[in-house]
Amino acid sequence: MNILVFNCGSSSLTYKVFKAADVRTVEAAVSGKAHRVGVTGTEPSFIEYKIGESTQKDIIPLKTHKDAAAFILKSLKDRIDIDLIGHRFVHGGNYFVSSEFINDETLRKLQLCLPLAPIHNPVSLSVINECRQTLPDVKQYVTFDSAFHSSLPAVAYTYALPASVTEKLNYRKYGFHGLSYLNVLLETGHFFKTSPEKLKIIACHLGTGGSSIAAIKDGHSIDTSMGYSPLTGLVMSTRCGDIDPMLTVYLMSVFGYRPDDLLDLLTKKSGLLGISGFSSDIRDIIKNTSPEDKDQADLAFDMYVYRIRKYIGGYAAILGGADVLVFTDDIGVYNWQVREKVCENMDWCGIALDSVANRDYNGKQIAMLSKENSPASVLCIPADEERVICLEGLNLSAKAGDKTR
Amino acid sequence: MNILVFNCGSSSLTYKVFKAADVRTVEAAVSGKAHRVGVTGTEPSFIEYKIGESTQKDIIPLKTHKDAAAFILKSLKDRIDIDLIGHRFVHGGNYFVSSEFINDETLRKLQLCLPLAPIHNPVSLSVINECRQTLPDVKQYVTFDSAFHSSLPAVAYTYALPASVTEKLNYRKYGFHGLSYLNVLLETGHFFKTSPEKLKIIACHLGTGGSSIAAIKDGHSIDTSMGYSPLTGLVMSTRCGDIDPMLTVYLMSVFGYRPDDLLDLLTKKSGLLGISGFSSDIRDIIKNTSPEDKDQADLAFDMYVYRIRKYIGGYAAILGGADVLVFTDDIGVYNWQVREKVCENMDWCGIALDSVANRDYNGKQIAMLSKENSPASVLCIPADEERVICLEGLNLSAKAGDKTR
Repeated sequence: MNILVFNCGSSSLTYKVFKAADVRTVEAAVSGKAHRVGVTGTEPSFIEYKIGESTQKDIIPLKTHKDAAAFILKSLKDRIDIDLIGHRFVHGGNYFVSSEFINDETLRKLQLCLPLAPIHNPVSLSVINECRQTLPDVKQYVTFDSAFHSSLPAVAYTYALPASVTEKLNYRKYGFHGLSYLNVLLETGHFFKTSPEKLKIIACHLGTGGSSIAAIKDGHSIDTSMGYSPLTGLVMSTRCGDIDPMLTVYLMSVFGYRPDDLLDLLTKKSGLLGISGFSSDIRDIIKNTSPEDKDQADLAFDMYVYRIRKYIGGYAAILGGADVLVFTDDIGVYNWQVREKVCENMDWCGIALDSVANRDYNGKQIAMLSKENSPASVLCIPADEERVICLEGLNLSAKAGDKTR
Repeated sequence: MNILVFNCGSSSLTYKVFKAADVRTVEAAVSGKAHRVGVTGTEPSFIEYKIGESTQKDIIPLKTHKDAAAFILKSLKDRIDIDLIGHRFVHGGNYFVSSEFINDETLRKLQLCLPLAPIHNPVSLSVINECRQTLPDVKQYVTFDSAFHSSLPAVAYTYALPASVTEKLNYRKYGFHGLSYLNVLLETGHFFKTSPEKLKIIACHLGTGGSSIAAIKDGHSIDTSMGYSPLTGLVMSTRCGDIDPMLTVYLMSVFGYRPDDLLDLLTKKSGLLGISGFSSDIRDIIKNTSPEDKDQADLAFDMYVYRIRKYIGGYAAILGGADVLVFTDDIGVYNWQVREKVCENMDWCGIALDSVANRDYNGKQIAMLSKENSPASVLCIPADEERVICLEGLNLSAKAGDKTR
């Protein structure tokens, strides 16, 4: 079975076609990415196509993700048959607790989810609609970044607000990066040749944009640092993470911020960018060659690491100690300085990093970076959301097959 | 030297006169409390006076804290000489990092602090002014709940917002309950007959109204759960503690909450009251005899404990493990159920509660409640803010004496 996976970024559209017989023999045959979608700037937008070892690049105007999807589908038409198409949706709210095949009822519920993630969800839906139009006979399914956290217990997902408010407005912790955490869970079990349900895992998804952390027990997420929205938790590239909510009230009531200004401040001008004053990228901040930026750059790096360490301690407390600490996604996998500082002086809770292995690690494959005698293992796992989306499609198909037998 | 200490609550005014030769021989000679100050209700306001074993109660209208202070000063006039008067201020902002004698410059700075704690600070200042008027020749000093946390490192007190915003608006973590934490620090050192600078302490100040938690190292606060305001951190009686700040933005922008409604919601209708729907008092919630309230009561108790546990883990991480876990203030000292649940399954980080000693403890004096072989000690320390305020006065006087020698 050939499964086409679409994964929308805010200004990109990644796609991969997997040849998949079962969950253990999944291989990307064709892949690529549309870049600078909807971006107006001096550089043009373009689409990359990778088939085997060859890469092709088409410079082409891409006003919307829908346009990009149309070009990609057209280019694939004569190259490979598509049996199934999978999509990633960021926020499924209370409407979706697992992946689902797309039908009229699913589409109705997806519509209801649009306001939950106003930047990401409508774009994903437009790509789904483009596929329905171009390949009306190909079945589609949708996966959710929030679904993995639908297992959170009430003690973790409830906000300490009146039930009349939380229930009426569906205010609860949803959590995100769920496809990445699912990948962590599967790969960790595979690495240790054990059922992942047996492991207490603290997983740090450290991306170049958003970052979060999750506590996983019995194969389920039991807590995570993002909340109702992806704003809260860790210090991110431009998002503030945890702050005193009173600040938002004062900024509006005393200092006259309008909601839009405030959203802009908290989501686009804060985090590493806000602290450092010059970059939202932890890699720039670590380099900090300029003496006049050094103090703020050091503070930004220290705060980034400090927040992660506090969450690791907090999640160790609710797990009753952790068996595995995982780093994933780009910063988690490619940045040894962050891992080294996060794990510094963590022996008290059983985490002992092998600093040589940590510095030598190339980020290409799953690897253990803890000392041999470390009570808790430290793993690095490259993220592969598209592969997880593909596996979700295989699982859905298998279940549907079971039903029709 | 006789030191009169005033401690303003939101609707009460506690006072104590200490006979104090030095910090080790401090004894309350006269004490009492004005109740229901500024409260309009069916019960009248009154002032209690305790001298030795005898207690007297005067029913008297008390419209303001200033009125209450005037009555108290009048009643003390013929009973005991006053050499020095100490006050508690909740929020000293960036203006005060330690206790200070009151003079014109101090008064000017206290005025600037009024908006930082609009419920508490103006009331305290009115009592100071009443004392100046009635006893113009008696020296006064002021202590601050925020001062103990002035030692926080930048990594802990900085919010991940643009420096242009945090610096302009003095947005940083201040922290509160500092007099209580100072008491914890002194009493812990005294209990272990060691310099408290040698101990890594996690202190839980669990009050009937506000609650917070602090990490103390080298004799200084290095992090605490309250922030710019006393809203954030733990689940409190009616305050929400940590929430996704995006919720406040949405409540205002999408659901039309005005700032005053929102403050009312987050500070007076949330926390234990919001979750349980029937009481802001953890003791009522533990009793939860009524079957229809049981689920929400259980959730409120679980969330209260869960949040404390996460902070303990987080602070253990930044301390590199803790030597002592302290419970203080009314709920911390009088509620064995909370302590038992907080310490459950905490062996992984060296905390082993002696459950029999915990249940038997009467809350009257400092006591160790951990098992003999527990790597970290669990201490209960009754709060005594007035005594700490008195000690601050003795220290100020000693320093002033040193200077004039």
